[in-house]
Amino acid sequence: MTTTRLTPEHHQKRIEKLSAKLEEEEKDTLLVFNAKNIFYLTGLSFIPTERPIVLIVHKGETYFFVPSLEIDHVEHQVPFVSEIFSYFEYPDVKHPMYCLADVLMNEIKIEPLKVASEAPGAPSYWGYKGPKLEESTGFKFHLLPDLIMDMRVIKEPKEIDLMRESSKWADRVHKYLQDFTEVGANEMDVSIRASTQGSHDMITELGDNYHPTGFSMFPASAVYRGQIGPNSYFPHALSRGLLFKKGDTLVTGASSDVYGVKSELERTMFMGEPSSRQKELFKAMMAAQDAALAAAGPDIDCAEVDKAARKAFKDHGVANLVRHHTGHALGMEGHERPFLDVGSEEVLKPGMIFSCEPGIYERGLGGFRHSDTFVVTNDGIEVLTKYPRDLELLIIS
Amino acid sequence: MTTTRLTPEHHQKRIEKLSAKLEEEEKDTLLVFNAKNIFYLTGLSFIPTERPIVLIVHKGETYFFVPSLEIDHVEHQVPFVSEIFSYFEYPDVKHPMYCLADVLMNEIKIEPLKVASEAPGAPSYWGYKGPKLEESTGFKFHLLPDLIMDMRVIKEPKEIDLMRESSKWADRVHKYLQDFTEVGANEMDVSIRASTQGSHDMITELGDNYHPTGFSMFPASAVYRGQIGPNSYFPHALSRGLLFKKGDTLVTGASSDVYGVKSELERTMFMGEPSSRQKELFKAMMAAQDAALAAAGPDIDCAEVDKAARKAFKDHGVANLVRHHTGHALGMEGHERPFLDVGSEEVLKPGMIFSCEPGIYERGLGGFRHSDTFVVTNDGIEVLTKYPRDLELLIIS
Repeated sequence: MTTTRLTPEHHQKRIEKLSAKLEEEEKDTLLVFNAKNIFYLTGLSFIPTERPIVLIVHKGETYFFVPSLEIDHVEHQVPFVSEIFSYFEYPDVKHPMYCLADVLMNEIKIEPLKVASEAPGAPSYWGYKGPKLEESTGFKFHLLPDLIMDMRVIKEPKEIDLMRESSKWADRVHKYLQDFTEVGANEMDVSIRASTQGSHDMITELGDNYHPTGFSMFPASAVYRGQIGPNSYFPHALSRGLLFKKGDTLVTGASSDVYGVKSELERTMFMGEPSSRQKELFKAMMAAQDAALAAAGPDIDCAEVDKAARKAFKDHGVANLVRHHTGHALGMEGHERPFLDVGSEEVLKPGMIFSCEPGIYERGLGGFRHSDTFVVTNDGIEVLTKYPRDLELLIIS
Repeated sequence: MTTTRLTPEHHQKRIEKLSAKLEEEEKDTLLVFNAKNIFYLTGLSFIPTERPIVLIVHKGETYFFVPSLEIDHVEHQVPFVSEIFSYFEYPDVKHPMYCLADVLMNEIKIEPLKVASEAPGAPSYWGYKGPKLEESTGFKFHLLPDLIMDMRVIKEPKEIDLMRESSKWADRVHKYLQDFTEVGANEMDVSIRASTQGSHDMITELGDNYHPTGFSMFPASAVYRGQIGPNSYFPHALSRGLLFKKGDTLVTGASSDVYGVKSELERTMFMGEPSSRQKELFKAMMAAQDAALAAAGPDIDCAEVDKAARKAFKDHGVANLVRHHTGHALGMEGHERPFLDVGSEEVLKPGMIFSCEPGIYERGLGGFRHSDTFVVTNDGIEVLTKYPRDLELLIIS
């Protein structure tokens, strides 16, 4: 059976785990402001605005503090919520942070010494301004900004299943991107067509198993993002509405959203038979990706994986064309920590998920980068994206 | 001539204005971390990642501190940059914040007492962790978190032209959304089809005048975001792949991206002839929007505009169905301050741009909200979105 969502019971287990971690810190309450962290813990997806939304985990129970326009939304999505407290609107006559202080002290009745918060106050987003918690409540909050992000580093088996499913649809939508690409077409048209077709397949084939979280307009998407011909020289190029020309080096990007989890798949492709220099740089890039994947595994230093890729680039005489490290963790966010970087002090552990994407960039010619998503297992790694990597399958004639 | 971008000279004027404001604060240097603020000042659009990107405005000159993968990108996009400093990668062996400290002290040679920063350090985004500026440089930074956001509150005439253009394409793409909506269709398919067609028109008709900033996959987009039938009762519903049914109340959203500026257009529509209750709530909503637009103008309190809408709702006996205030400023972000809210202490000034969107929500039936974008002029307001508002034009038969 395909895993395409997590159950409320799964979210409750995460809350239990968080509560145990809080106890280690001698706290019994945590205020959570980060929207992804709130989704991770409760399954509540919402549109972050200037109106603060706060998840309060208190003695293992789940409380929300939300604006009135979100009350029913929480009821609808979080069956295990203990109580929903609300304020009418931001900014309003009484600032929400003072309403929150009332809730904490008079309703939930927190003990100031046992309370921690992810942040000193609500984030300054979309025009929001407000006092820090310390100012609105009159006491100091112990800050634990990394607690939930640290939990998110090791993915649970069910999350790995979500990433496996996301990788499958990334492969599918990428196929459309490649199929629709032709000389003279506009990159934006091709990206939209491929994403439309891939999303349509995903909605149709998953049927009732598809549960959009609302984070993406396209459940599956594939784009060029301006990485076409000489412009692919910019690793972080942006869409420019470019047209495909014979001889172009292309760099793609594909993903899909499965309950907020998103894989990463990128390929270097060519418009027509590549030149000898294009082949040479492609070969160097493949060698670096092979070396990095071969180096990765449980209990290996993140730095070693990056070093393996860099050594391959050096052996091919292209160390000077490197612009970035070999990869990053990923899950609900495009990039997460840790990083496959020579400066990292972290170690690969089973359940971590990474991109592997060593790249080289030659001015005037373009970028050369494949990216694949892999999970660290007990005895090695498993590459989740399966799209063809070899040169002959990536030439668009 | 249609305005579809700002020139480098325009950005330089903004830097000059910022420098004058800094001088009032007895500072000569500002560190800018916010990606939208960097775009506002320089025209540099980039993908924010875990790698810090810092704009340093120093004695009226523009410097950048960027990762190696962005160096050429800055050269390409910011012709007036004085110098680009870089670090190889994050996290790397030497943390970028220590490299930044070297640049500030040994290259730019800032005077500690004359330096301000938007934030105490780089934002914790996509797995980034790092020391505060104070820790990496050894001296205190004066914080000016609101300086640029305050500049952005009053829109310049050219920015108002960008918003006018954005409103035009929002109207166009909304027309497709309405045309493509029919009983049995899936909201996600209709949104994608409308956005594809609207974006295609925009790219084709603007031709070389279209300058994508890369912030959006669709230059023009129109969506339902799950606001269909009883689900439109949630003001911030999220896409659920719902099918349209006879009798549904619908709430839409349309916008387009013109050099990062985005208008807001929303309409309440009906699948077939509305019931008497649907008509009654539609009428109350229209009365509230009319009252708010009539109340708005230069030197009027933001609170008065919200009060005018609330009075109209009360007069129609539906004050209990209100879930949010009447509107918000907008420009490069979906919501900006100030807000049209009873608790606001701000005043409407010429050059401010707002949404006007009083809404009411009845459980089981749905939401009733139009949103239009207006600019405050010297002697009144100008509504920039022109899509039909009247009931008979919003019934899908």
